[in-house]
Amino acid sequence: MPSPKTGLWLIGARGGVATTAAVGLAAVRRGLTRPTALVTELPMFAGCGLTGWPDLVLGGHDIRQAPAAETAEALAASNAIDRDLVDATLPDLDRYDGEVRPGVLHRSGSTIEGLADEGFSIAADSPRGQIEQVKRDLRDFQARHKLERVVVMLVASTEPATPTELLPERWREFDATLENHSTCLARASTLYAIAALELAQPFINFTPSLGSDCPALRELATERGAVHMGRDGKTGETLLKSVLAPMFARRNLEVMSWVGHNIFGNMDGQVLDDPVNKAAKVRSKDHLLGEILGYDPQTLVSIEYIRSLGDWKTAWDHVHFRGFLGTPMTLQLTWQGCDSALAAPLVLDLARLAARSAERGESGELTHLASFFKSPQGGPTADFVKQYDLLESWAAGASL
Amino acid sequence: MPSPKTGLWLIGARGGVATTAAVGLAAVRRGLTRPTALVTELPMFAGCGLTGWPDLVLGGHDIRQAPAAETAEALAASNAIDRDLVDATLPDLDRYDGEVRPGVLHRSGSTIEGLADEGFSIAADSPRGQIEQVKRDLRDFQARHKLERVVVMLVASTEPATPTELLPERWREFDATLENHSTCLARASTLYAIAALELAQPFINFTPSLGSDCPALRELATERGAVHMGRDGKTGETLLKSVLAPMFARRNLEVMSWVGHNIFGNMDGQVLDDPVNKAAKVRSKDHLLGEILGYDPQTLVSIEYIRSLGDWKTAWDHVHFRGFLGTPMTLQLTWQGCDSALAAPLVLDLARLAARSAERGESGELTHLASFFKSPQGGPTADFVKQYDLLESWAAGASL
Amino acid sequence: MPSPKTGLWLIGARGGVATTAAVGLAAVRRGLTRPTALVTELPMFAGCGLTGWPDLVLGGHDIRQAPAAETAEALAASNAIDRDLVDATLPDLDRYDGEVRPGVLHRSGSTIEGLADEGFSIAADSPRGQIEQVKRDLRDFQARHKLERVVVMLVASTEPATPTELLPERWREFDATLENHSTCLARASTLYAIAALELAQPFINFTPSLGSDCPALRELATERGAVHMGRDGKTGETLLKSVLAPMFARRNLEVMSWVGHNIFGNMDGQVLDDPVNKAAKVRSKDHLLGEILGYDPQTLVSIEYIRSLGDWKTAWDHVHFRGFLGTPMTLQLTWQGCDSALAAPLVLDLARLAARSAERGESGELTHLASFFKSPQGGPTADFVKQYDLLESWAAGASL
Amino acid sequence: MPSPKTGLWLIGARGGVATTAAVGLAAVRRGLTRPTALVTELPMFAGCGLTGWPDLVLGGHDIRQAPAAETAEALAASNAIDRDLVDATLPDLDRYDGEVRPGVLHRSGSTIEGLADEGFSIAADSPRGQIEQVKRDLRDFQARHKLERVVVMLVASTEPATPTELLPERWREFDATLENHSTCLARASTLYAIAALELAQPFINFTPSLGSDCPALRELATERGAVHMGRDGKTGETLLKSVLAPMFARRNLEVMSWVGHNIFGNMDGQVLDDPVNKAAKVRSKDHLLGEILGYDPQTLVSIEYIRSLGDWKTAWDHVHFRGFLGTPMTLQLTWQGCDSALAAPLVLDLARLAARSAERGESGELTHLASFFKSPQGGPTADFVKQYDLLESWAAGASL
Ligand SMILES: NC(=O)c1ccc[n+]([C@@H]2O[C@H](COP(=O)([O-])OP(=O)(O)OC[C@H]3O[C@@H](n4cnc5c(N)ncnc54)[C@H](O)[C@@H]3O)[C@@H](O)[C@H]2O)c1
Ligand SMILES: NC(=O)c1ccc[n+]([C@@H]2O[C@H](COP(=O)([O-])OP(=O)(O)OC[C@H]3O[C@@H](n4cnc5c(N)ncnc54)[C@H](O)[C@@H]3O)[C@@H](O)[C@H]2O)c1
Ligand SMILES: NC(=O)c1ccc[n+]([C@@H]2O[C@H](COP(=O)([O-])OP(=O)(O)OC[C@H]3O[C@@H](n4cnc5c(N)ncnc54)[C@H](O)[C@@H]3O)[C@@H](O)[C@H]2O)c1
Ligand SMILES: NC(=O)c1ccc[n+]([C@@H]2O[C@H](COP(=O)([O-])OP(=O)(O)OC[C@H]3O[C@@H](n4cnc5c(N)ncnc54)[C@H](O)[C@@H]3O)[C@@H](O)[C@H]2O)c1
Ligand code: NA
Ligand code: NA
Repeated sequence: MPSPKTGLWLIGARGGVATTAAVGLAAVRRGLTRPTALVTELPMFAGCGLTGWPDLVLGGHDIRQAPAAETAEALAASNAIDRDLVDATLPDLDRYDGEVRPGVLHRSGSTIEGLADEGFSIAADSPRGQIEQVKRDLRDFQARHKLERVVVMLVASTEPATPTELLPERWREFDATLENHSTCLARASTLYAIAALELAQPFINFTPSLGSDCPALRELATERGAVHMGRDGKTGETLLKSVLAPMFARRNLEVMSWVGHNIFGNMDGQVLDDPVNKAAKVRSKDHLLGEILGYDPQTLVSIEYIRSLGDWKTAWDHVHFRGFLGTPMTLQLTWQGCDSALAAPLVLDLARLAARSAERGESGELTHLASFFKSPQGGPTADFVKQYDLLESWAAGASL
Repeated sequence: MPSPKTGLWLIGARGGVATTAAVGLAAVRRGLTRPTALVTELPMFAGCGLTGWPDLVLGGHDIRQAPAAETAEALAASNAIDRDLVDATLPDLDRYDGEVRPGVLHRSGSTIEGLADEGFSIAADSPRGQIEQVKRDLRDFQARHKLERVVVMLVASTEPATPTELLPERWREFDATLENHSTCLARASTLYAIAALELAQPFINFTPSLGSDCPALRELATERGAVHMGRDGKTGETLLKSVLAPMFARRNLEVMSWVGHNIFGNMDGQVLDDPVNKAAKVRSKDHLLGEILGYDPQTLVSIEYIRSLGDWKTAWDHVHFRGFLGTPMTLQLTWQGCDSALAAPLVLDLARLAARSAERGESGELTHLASFFKSPQGGPTADFVKQYDLLESWAAGASL
Repeated sequence: MPSPKTGLWLIGARGGVATTAAVGLAAVRRGLTRPTALVTELPMFAGCGLTGWPDLVLGGHDIRQAPAAETAEALAASNAIDRDLVDATLPDLDRYDGEVRPGVLHRSGSTIEGLADEGFSIAADSPRGQIEQVKRDLRDFQARHKLERVVVMLVASTEPATPTELLPERWREFDATLENHSTCLARASTLYAIAALELAQPFINFTPSLGSDCPALRELATERGAVHMGRDGKTGETLLKSVLAPMFARRNLEVMSWVGHNIFGNMDGQVLDDPVNKAAKVRSKDHLLGEILGYDPQTLVSIEYIRSLGDWKTAWDHVHFRGFLGTPMTLQLTWQGCDSALAAPLVLDLARLAARSAERGESGELTHLASFFKSPQGGPTADFVKQYDLLESWAAGASL
Repeated sequence: MPSPKTGLWLIGARGGVATTAAVGLAAVRRGLTRPTALVTELPMFAGCGLTGWPDLVLGGHDIRQAPAAETAEALAASNAIDRDLVDATLPDLDRYDGEVRPGVLHRSGSTIEGLADEGFSIAADSPRGQIEQVKRDLRDFQARHKLERVVVMLVASTEPATPTELLPERWREFDATLENHSTCLARASTLYAIAALELAQPFINFTPSLGSDCPALRELATERGAVHMGRDGKTGETLLKSVLAPMFARRNLEVMSWVGHNIFGNMDGQVLDDPVNKAAKVRSKDHLLGEILGYDPQTLVSIEYIRSLGDWKTAWDHVHFRGFLGTPMTLQLTWQGCDSALAAPLVLDLARLAARSAERGESGELTHLASFFKSPQGGPTADFVKQYDLLESWAAGASL
């Protein structure tokens, strides 16, 4: 009996994270790389019945036509991916390109709209129409490849913050707003989420955009028995914070201020350079300190677009804390990580984990995936190790 | 009924750590400072019945006569302790000075012997005689202050590494070597440990010296029902390692090399500047990476004496790791901590915790205190959070 | 014949820089400190006939009444000045307090106006009236202490940028605008400059505020034969830039981006936290790179107010440059300096140097003092060493 | 009339620096790269009549046979050189390989001897015989390519320090020691220097090895009218020191300690990992602080071999200095540079500059090249900018 195949549908399919995931999956399958940075390759998942890499099929939506090979080429040029791996996986990238469909835009803001190809048109006359278009693409994909299920993964550009206080809390009323563009205050990320959840497919939001993180969509997910989770992949500076802040707490050291300056130069950085888009991201990187420490030190997070850095995110953190007898001390961190190479393996991990949760009949927010996110939905805890404990327990339970 | 009083006997009583503990205890008692950095002041210990600060009485051994106020003054001069606190606690330091007795030296190495006051003599004609001298001092102290028990805490200069492979494994044979200096290959730290354990008093080793960490003394401790633990307080760079290395492991990131350079300028630094003493310390800071990661990255730890830094330990760590698709990335840390102010609160915590364990009738190595040490005896795990979980469980169990 | 005495009149007399200068001058005079950080104590100035420290008399203006001892106390608390020095110079600070007069405010912006003591009133009915008040204070000071001359030094809070394009270029027309508050678009810093120059006294601007840096005041200075110079003392990050950028240029290395993040927590920081005040400062820290390199790398300068740091300015600079064959490389700097202790000695140096220039009959902008400023008036060169060469030549020429 | 051709003979021809110089020269000639990092491409050299890049011919000695393409490949793999440039210059590297001859070893120490190919034999029976062999190779090279002159450039592995106090000071006596291996205490680097100088060819020493830096060879050079210069290319940490230390001096700031830790992982690092070879290098990086500052702060320089870093030299410098009123402050630097890409352009620059000096009839030590070296022979000054001034003056004088 052939193993059941799983689809991974990437919203933002031609971006840095999605493309690195595509190169990476191909390289892993071809045996060209070791499984470094794939959490689900750790021993504790060995018996969990996760989708095998050969059984994962990629497709997605984007608003740009540039072939994935072009993005991959740029990543190789900035030393984010080894050039040889890109060369060796070009046929896979070509095939992937064939599975990418035009996505949807809705209240995405002028910076994101500026990215779209000339001539890219908001096809449907209403948000509901756009949702149906997305669902058609998902169903076609599933049928074309005989997929058991399709995990929908949001890795598109960060939208401006959504005014959640204005969104209807009940699904029925929310649904009613979808009939035309002016009444629907949600943005494209949420339309994608609705499409996935209405099809009872897993929806994972790797970005700070709203996606499914509101009461109405929680209701929808529960109703359809769908699983979902987000928001904002935890890959660098925030990962460090969620590991180090608990250390200060456990040692009863008082954090007086925590300053974090991030600089990088990829397309994501360009989008985040727009203050409305940046605001959403900064909030996502900042709140956890208070949650972990139990008090609010002065914090500062900046994200700045510095062209020359390309995909290399450099973060400098300055932690000013007080020790015994009030003596002030300092910890500084400099993180030089390649953003796409940090995010892509987690995207592949989340696809496998969400698919397995769906298969096991779980539903609602997958809080055991909290360790993957900066702002985990369902918010179980902000302490990385406690979050990871949840994952370990799940792995133990999911073992066959 | 007055609460039972506990003694804390500091070996190395006039050193930086011990003096800061003395100033700190006085300042806490006088209400001059908040309990920052005292782990045992966290809520989880509230119901554990730990000794109240007013019921803790200090005394100790040293090989130098310089009054504690002088050490405290030097610490204030290098901004390690607030000058006002030193001024306000001078009467307490005077009283403390009155409780310090001349210690013992045995195979302590020329650098430590060089610290001893001129005219300081190795009084006893044999190690056994020295042990008995220490025991007399401990018993006098206990009687003088009507103490329920006396925790013996080693905070003396780091000795050269002891050749453990040459020490007898059984207590009976070990005991026989104590009859004269030439047959006894253990060093002073172990003589102090024997004195404490023979009196069934708790013995805690905050230094990298051997102390009680050998089979013969483990046997002795068990036989007498005494508790003990060590080695080497985990206060700075190694604390960070035991928090960050698990992060790399949990994310399946491959650490290729981890370099740590430490510079500082206090008396401890002067002693560690002697290569034979340094070797013991470096080993203690380095081994945990392999234990946590499950493989051995290239590591390097240097400790260098830089006069101008005084008590300020500055550590630079450079972690070179490999992410997805083999992409190399870097994390750098700079830690600027005040050594004594980091160590002293843990010394006070350990005193309370060890006393309570003894009171509860525990015996042998207190592995639930592993999170306090770089090289925890009984070696339960090298992951800080897992170590801390043990402490949390203990606290839950010890609650009244 | 007694040596002629020189006055140093500090605008912003109760601020961090001025107070540190006052403590420092007293400590130097009392022989309590070595002349570290005083440029004019270097051998090359030995024969230049600079005012001796005992012959320098301090006074000034401020808009706040808090005694200097209070500011000094706060600086000692944040380890910016040694407490013992503050204690030993309290009598000098008291005498200094007696020489401080209420200053003037004019278009100083709401943040600076918020600093002024309650009840502080803009006494005069016109800018011209305010100028005359300042001149009276200066003349009184000179007479009271029989001073040969009075150097007026601006160390007051950074004002919002002045709209220089709207200021009359000729002194006569500029003068005419001073008749009432609404027609005068210059700010207080420029009123102080006019007062000094009209009295033919040296005026030095240690701040980014406009002061005398406009055509009309240049004309006034020349006409009166007065010397003046500014702007913005070069003490930390910008000093490093003016030393390191030439290195890149001389080695033909291409700077792609230069990012500088500054954090600090003193009152100056609080004022600069207001975006209108900050804009003036940032401009002053940023322009020199293009001037030195001959092309414009991407640059970013941030200044953020982080309370817990007090007077400690921490700056992180990230320089991304291209070497041979286009290989990208990185230099990172972390500067941890005490702002007032960096600025104060330069203030004392500038007082001596400006006084001597006036004595020698120089007039106009003192471009040989360029090395002291971030944005040197007369703009001879942005390369620190070339600037310093000008100072060395001057010293050779001024030797008696 | 065809322009006269110049040879550049690289001792250590298959090493990282030499290979990068070969790739770089080819890339420059083919117009594949901009002249970034080539000092002699700055405008001030435009009229100096330096050898054009097409007229520079490469050859050299090595003790290993590995083709240059292999070294270049390894440099590309560690992102030190762009892979495309290596690919595009393979024909040039092949031609270069054809010009490399087996070099000589003499008292080179076991680590360097361990690098030599199996079967590599010390052909000649005496140092004098080895010198003659080297001269033959140089003359053949010159004749084969009709070269006006051949600059001999030492870029071979760092030898152990030579016991200069035991070397004869007069050339005649020194020469006499060359008759057999046991009487000659100089090492291979000096034999190469003798060969060059006896042929009156320019000799440049880019390494810390002794080369021509002793009285006897100075005499020889003068006698033959040959130019020479060294030692140890100034490319990274030491370059920064020679730029920053003068800043502290000019501002009268007191450097208390300067600690520098260097880590890297190329073949040079492997050789320097041997303590006898390292000692020579460390000395070369350390002495200049005292020379610049006029007093000796505590200094520490470490160089450690960390495999994973390949050609990327990472240096962390910690400068602890005292400001006004004794306030201690800190500057930290992290330099992440690619060693070969930093060194290679200077090697090409030095070849052009030395050739032009010879053409102009200069002789002896070329002290105007001091800015290129950590330990400049003739030791004019340790301040980078003052050194560079000498170069600028020379350029002005050499203009046609
Ligand atoms: N370490 C990381 O890289 C990391 C970590 C956490 C979160 N994220 C988030 O992941 C997202 C992707 O990052 P990236 O670096 O790949 O960015 P990117 O800019 O390279 O790619 C985003 C892609 O999304 C596409 N897109 C935008 N709006 C769309 C829409 N409405 N429908 C379909 N496609 C759309 C764009 O055309 C682009 O191809 C961002 O939101 C980022 O903040 C990244
Ligand atoms: N963060 C920290 O400060 C830290 C962390 C872990 C471990 N430690 C260890 O704690 C110990 C104390 O550190 P410190 O900074 O206080 O050092 P210190 O040099 O200031 O004090 C050590 C004291 O021990 C005394 N001494 C030496 N040999 C003795 C003996 N045989 N008997 C009695 N007294 C003796 C010395 O005279 C001195 O007063 C060191 O071993 C150090 O490595 C410190
Ligand atoms: N390293 C340095 O500290 C440094 C370097 C360059 C420039 N500066 C500049 O020097 C100035 C002073 O810095 P500081 O740290 O002393 O600041 P501060 O805030 O401690 O002191 C400024 C003082 O100016 C007073 N003031 C404000 N407006 C005034 C007015 N119109 N008349 C009279 N007094 C007035 C304030 O009351 C305050 O006492 C700032 O402009 C700062 O940007 C400082
Ligand atoms: N930034 C820099 O790279 C830098 C800066 C200053 C100085 N240097 C010095 O330049 C030299 C070369 O550095 P590298 O990185 O190219 O080192 P490398 O180890 O890559 O190359 C050295 C080469 O010299 C060869 N060699 C050794 N002994 C020889 C001999 N007696 N005759 C002929 N060849 C011999 C070796 O086989 C090797 O090919 C080293 O001494 C280094 O310290 C380098
Ligand atoms: Na210590
Ligand atoms: Na200031």
